Amino acid sequence: MRILVTGGLGALGTVLVKELRQRGHEVWACDLHHNHDRFYVRCDISKFRQIQNLISSHRFNYVYHLAAESGRSNGEDYYENLWMANVVGTKNLLRLQDNYRFRMVFLSSSEVYGDWPDIMSEDVMDKNEVKQLNDFAMTKWISEIQVLNHSRMANTETVRIRLFNTYGPGEYYSPYRGVICRFAWSALHDLPYEVYLNHHRTFTHLTDTARTLANIPDNFKPGEVYNIGGREYHNIKYLSDLILGYLRKPDDLVIYKESEPFTTMDKKIDIGKAERDLDHKPLITLEEGIPQTLNWMKEIYKETLSCPESASSFPTTTTPGTSQKQLIM
Amino acid sequence: MRILVTGGLGALGTVLVKELRQRGHEVWACDLHHNHDRFYVRCDISKFRQIQNLISSHRFNYVYHLAAESGRSNGEDYYENLWMANVVGTKNLLRLQDNYRFRMVFLSSSEVYGDWPDIMSEDVMDKNEVKQLNDFAMTKWISEIQVLNHSRMANTETVRIRLFNTYGPGEYYSPYRGVICRFAWSALHDLPYEVYLNHHRTFTHLTDTARTLANIPDNFKPGEVYNIGGREYHNIKYLSDLILGYLRKPDDLVIYKESEPFTTMDKKIDIGKAERDLDHKPLITLEEGIPQTLNWMKEIYKETLSCPESASSFPTTTTPGTSQKQLIM
Repeated sequence: MRILVTGGLGALGTVLVKELRQRGHEVWACDLHHNHDRFYVRCDISKFRQIQNLISSHRFNYVYHLAAESGRSNGEDYYENLWMANVVGTKNLLRLQDNYRFRMVFLSSSEVYGDWPDIMSEDVMDKNEVKQLNDFAMTKWISEIQVLNHSRMANTETVRIRLFNTYGPGEYYSPYRGVICRFAWSALHDLPYEVYLNHHRTFTHLTDTARTLANIPDNFKPGEVYNIGGREYHNIKYLSDLILGYLRKPDDLVIYKESEPFTTMDKKIDIGKAERDLDHKPLITLEEGIPQTLNWMKEIYKETLSCPESASSFPTTTTPGTSQKQLIM
Repeated sequence: MRILVTGGLGALGTVLVKELRQRGHEVWACDLHHNHDRFYVRCDISKFRQIQNLISSHRFNYVYHLAAESGRSNGEDYYENLWMANVVGTKNLLRLQDNYRFRMVFLSSSEVYGDWPDIMSEDVMDKNEVKQLNDFAMTKWISEIQVLNHSRMANTETVRIRLFNTYGPGEYYSPYRGVICRFAWSALHDLPYEVYLNHHRTFTHLTDTARTLANIPDNFKPGEVYNIGGREYHNIKYLSDLILGYLRKPDDLVIYKESEPFTTMDKKIDIGKAERDLDHKPLITLEEGIPQTLNWMKEIYKETLSCPESASSFPTTTTPGTSQKQLIM
């Protein structure tokens, strides 16, 4: 099959492209930058002409739509980019889907569950009013509704996926990254970081996530939505302890705080549906995935690690009016 | 008081600015175009620098935020503009509100009620999961949540207003306008138009709406949300009959259809809260407002009326992939 992965240079995109190619598909990728890959096209999905060029030049059977401005903190600081990429970008793809009839896999986020206090099963939002807590969450929820409205109006076929804290080698550090990436970076570079004691999350390794995503065409059910996450449920301090334990470092630089305001305390996830339909299997434990990630980081960042100033001089961004800096995840 | 009206050149903005000035306020307006008014500033609210310039140059006590890409059909055809103006634009204002602490009146729409089949009272979305049916509706709902999130995080003070079919003199025709404006235009120019028999709506005259909006500072309750609409509830054919009646024209050119897909059939509204808190009074009946609107149109469009070709040659826009043309309202 011919498949396009938007956001194909991202942490998850890279692994997914590889996985799909290993299964024998012709896999194209697009992302914001130029790249050497023969099956890669530079494309900003928020620019209709660019994505139209790409889609109309090939007959894709599937489009995995991963391209997005990600993360709450990033969404607050770069909200113009967020709304253009996530909502206008997805709308562009949906319009093209009307004409070119590819099947789509849309990557959403667990953030759509807002502050839902109970088990996050896929139908929560069909039964309950959930208000999203930040702009990033809103873009993902809105795009899900755009997908549903388009499917209804134009009979397009799309599956939605809600990711829960995916991590692993390939996630390059920035202050906007997920909690494992940020803790690992800080611990490696002996920089202080904050740990909120009352938050719990599940974590999924990139490899496990990509394998499940690659399974979707084997049992494609248009209109369905799936949680993809882990089975284990950890508090944030456990993560930090694991990282420091592998690095044999004390927790002197860790700033412990009770809980973070305006953030979901706990995310309890139901992954039964993805296990049944998509053969989702969270195989890699944190105890395996974290040292693997640390080793990858040590290799990638050997320069900043040998010269600590270059890491610590990386400024902690602060924007007037934003109180959402240094979020826990 | 010093007041800013964004979208101050629009049909409602124009009437609101006048009303507020009559009450003795110093009223500034901004909109996309240049204008002669001494208290007018050209400003695209989706461009942060432009709106920041305006806000930082004056100490506004109130900002009435009316500027928006309006209407479902317009939102489908111009979705890039829609998301930038409505969501990024509102976000820009909210960020500025954090710093400049003006009180805000945010103009939302009855479209946020989606296909809610029952009485649309303000708390429907607090108790029920409602999915918005189109991008325009989504931008309005999203902005309401942005307002709520910001109020919670930065203690800003905003009142939200949900408008139900406002009409009247000053609404210049385009195919994206409200139903009264479109029917009136078509009937005046002997052009065919579609009437959906099974849709019901309430209508509010611009003057009634503007008076209620101008009352808000007299009893400003931060965090509140109000429906502003009429008390009467009409089917769409009644509207058409009224218009044709005043013009003494037959309904030969009217194309009657049962109902329009993907559109709210009925909008039943509860306006009790606005009546209690904001002294909302829908005084102008359709039987008064429609001939007034027709007379204004006859005056404004005397050129196209004397030369029918110039009206009928106005193309009916059609965009590939859009099935939402010529919506009923």
